[in-house]
Amino acid sequence: MRHSAGLLRRFTRANHPARMVVVGFALTVLVGTVLLMLPVSAQHGTATNWVTALFTSTSAVCVTGLVVVDTAGHWSTFGEVVILGLIQVGGLGIMTLASLLGMLVVRRLGLRMRRRAQAETKSIDLGAVRSVIAGVIALSLVIEALTALALTLRFVLGYGQSWGHGAYFGVFHAVSAFNNAGFALYPDSLQRYATDPLVCLPVVLAVIVGGVGFPVLFEIGRRLRGKRRHWSLHARVTVGTYTTLLLVGVLAFGAFEWNNPDTLGPLGTGGKLLVGLFHGVTPRTAGFTTVDIGGIDPTTMLVNDVLMFVGGGSAGTAGGIKVTTFALLAFVILAEVRGESQVHVLGRKLPVGVQRQALTVVLVGVGMVFTATLLLLVLTPFKLDAALFESISAFGTVGLSTGITEQLPRLGELVLVVLMFTGRLGPITMASALALRERGRRYDLPEERPIVG
Amino acid sequence: MRHSAGLLRRFTRANHPARMVVVGFALTVLVGTVLLMLPVSAQHGTATNWVTALFTSTSAVCVTGLVVVDTAGHWSTFGEVVILGLIQVGGLGIMTLASLLGMLVVRRLGLRMRRRAQAETKSIDLGAVRSVIAGVIALSLVIEALTALALTLRFVLGYGQSWGHGAYFGVFHAVSAFNNAGFALYPDSLQRYATDPLVCLPVVLAVIVGGVGFPVLFEIGRRLRGKRRHWSLHARVTVGTYTTLLLVGVLAFGAFEWNNPDTLGPLGTGGKLLVGLFHGVTPRTAGFTTVDIGGIDPTTMLVNDVLMFVGGGSAGTAGGIKVTTFALLAFVILAEVRGESQVHVLGRKLPVGVQRQALTVVLVGVGMVFTATLLLLVLTPFKLDAALFESISAFGTVGLSTGITEQLPRLGELVLVVLMFTGRLGPITMASALALRERGRRYDLPEERPIVG
Ligand SMILES: [K+]
Ligand SMILES: [K+]
Repeated sequence: MRHSAGLLRRFTRANHPARMVVVGFALTVLVGTVLLMLPVSAQHGTATNWVTALFTSTSAVCVTGLVVVDTAGHWSTFGEVVILGLIQVGGLGIMTLASLLGMLVVRRLGLRMRRRAQAETKSIDLGAVRSVIAGVIALSLVIEALTALALTLRFVLGYGQSWGHGAYFGVFHAVSAFNNAGFALYPDSLQRYATDPLVCLPVVLAVIVGGVGFPVLFEIGRRLRGKRRHWSLHARVTVGTYTTLLLVGVLAFGAFEWNNPDTLGPLGTGGKLLVGLFHGVTPRTAGFTTVDIGGIDPTTMLVNDVLMFVGGGSAGTAGGIKVTTFALLAFVILAEVRGESQVHVLGRKLPVGVQRQALTVVLVGVGMVFTATLLLLVLTPFKLDAALFESISAFGTVGLSTGITEQLPRLGELVLVVLMFTGRLGPITMASALALRERGRRYDLPEERPIVG
Repeated sequence: MRHSAGLLRRFTRANHPARMVVVGFALTVLVGTVLLMLPVSAQHGTATNWVTALFTSTSAVCVTGLVVVDTAGHWSTFGEVVILGLIQVGGLGIMTLASLLGMLVVRRLGLRMRRRAQAETKSIDLGAVRSVIAGVIALSLVIEALTALALTLRFVLGYGQSWGHGAYFGVFHAVSAFNNAGFALYPDSLQRYATDPLVCLPVVLAVIVGGVGFPVLFEIGRRLRGKRRHWSLHARVTVGTYTTLLLVGVLAFGAFEWNNPDTLGPLGTGGKLLVGLFHGVTPRTAGFTTVDIGGIDPTTMLVNDVLMFVGGGSAGTAGGIKVTTFALLAFVILAEVRGESQVHVLGRKLPVGVQRQALTVVLVGVGMVFTATLLLLVLTPFKLDAALFESISAFGTVGLSTGITEQLPRLGELVLVVLMFTGRLGPITMASALALRERGRRYDLPEERPIVG
């Protein structure tokens, strides 16, 4: 048992990169909590209680979008700007740090490098760090600006809002969309724009670009500039899985809700298709809604449970266990059923270590969601479907809600705070901490095979 | 893709052992269905429709215990005896065949043998087969006889039943208990005996002995005769995990139901403890109840969902993915978190192949339960908690019901029929078919590591 506390010991070491990420996010959440508690942050000029402030700050930094008070109704414009800032910091932070951790893992393990010239160094050189940070910031600002422009024009020209109001709403929802944050300045999210493609499509595009992950976008960028010939395995698996899950989401929502009088029922065919598309995208942890989630069919809810748990691409603004983690396990099972001793993914061999990491991320995630659901069932009168949906929404930093979050007791809110934070950082830090771990016990024990199944 | 259909091809080969098990069970179910459709099998002397007969036959052969008609109310004594026979054949069959498949796996892979002298042969010799069959039959008859005796004496002496009636009820419930079948001759299962330890304890003991699995009992038997010095890894993991889950079940049921007016609330402390013990044991796929499952707390239900999915010991009468499968994955995660490159379980190294098999069994099981739950949600007005509980109960061949099985439409009944059959045979045949597979593609592809989490 010499190395038994290996990961824990290394994780608590001050300079472990995964630990720095966790501490950085925790400090940002604390700063946000303090700012939101100030009387100036609230609509009525009175101090907000610490649980509400902590919940909102965590939800913003972790780009979740679950709320215990209506965003526009409770917070002042100052408070809203604080939330916007927390979303932006959280989104930039997660993309930058997850990309750097991913690079560190690739580099430390001596596998294929992004830049072969740097293969000798043990850590990432400052140039690479700068280029990731610059790339993330540039990408975020460009996409957010374009989305904000499109939304502002629509709000002003289509809905007669003033330029000031339209621009503020355009920027807020653009930043919230690109960062897959799901915060909206309307109490019913984007439901009033449900059938307006000029609002819904820019939001959907921003959500997808933000959620597919920086490494994939970086690769697309390099390819567009003619610098790369082959797509990496990561990019191919991400794009393929992201697209597949998106189609599943759209088809499931369309099929199960088509005649539901509480959702798609009252809409025309065009409206049904647009809302179906929007709600096929939003479980990829965007969190905006254009129909009332409280009214969806139990079947849709269950499909969404799975889609939200899986989430989006690695090192993007989306949450969940990530589409690659999900896809890799599918390939492991496929290999097992095919009777192959090694796991092959699109012409590449999958290291055994990665398989175990994916398994660990998924099962720890299942354990966390299970525990939170159980706690919500103990603490509240809500049923399994609602408690499970809200837990997965918090874990996957999705922000979709059947409406129970606003009715939770304090302890229930704290359960979701912990779940949002661990759900946001858990899969990333766990996977990288696991991958960066030392090689354990070298001495061999005799092998023995218990019966499975 | 040369070997892409490896497992499938080998599985469809006539003499693949896993396939023979599936065909054997399917034929038994068909014979049972025909017998139960006969007018003589029904109380009223009229033919029973094929769906009800198929459901009941499947439930009996797979020792599940879910029913769409009240057992004593619908079937004649002849029909009841048919059910009893199907339970006995199903229980003996699963114990024998799973034990033999397990031995075949161990032998084929050239690992530690039960008898070293036979290590050279490629298959199991007839002597070993005979000894397993004889052992299973002897064990079943002895335990069933002892349980039947205890129950009969109690029914006759404690409740004034006639010797004939008491013996019939004693035998039926003893066989049903040992085979973890959960069929009862009372419409409310064993609720009338909830506070009678002289009925409950023999049933609990029979359930545990039947459910822990023949390989473990075989080892205990050999040890009692002084023939074996060390416990196998399989026995240690099974007993440890079975006991732990049993305690979790008892504690959860006691804690969450203590004051529930629909379950433990009205009982005295002694009664609460006895029912708590009984319902801590019964999710290990026994299926008998001594309180109304429809009245349990959502929290208890969720804990039971997990316990029922895990089930009992390998090659016993219990169902589920099996306690070893569950425990092995926990050890894989533990090794991963500790930063160890190999997985060690109680001083033994776990082969990578077994890890992947356990993963496959669990995730395919999750997929099956998910699909069935989704279908039930589509086909019925029931909520997620009830649909999920019933699906897991069918998959794990548990037989606990919140009451919705009797209200299902035909298609819903057929969903559960498929789930009971695949849940009973899937984990066993999948695990052994996977373990017996040929070694696949030998040529190597370049390794590449996508980002996880
Ligand atoms: K979100
Ligand atoms: K059962």
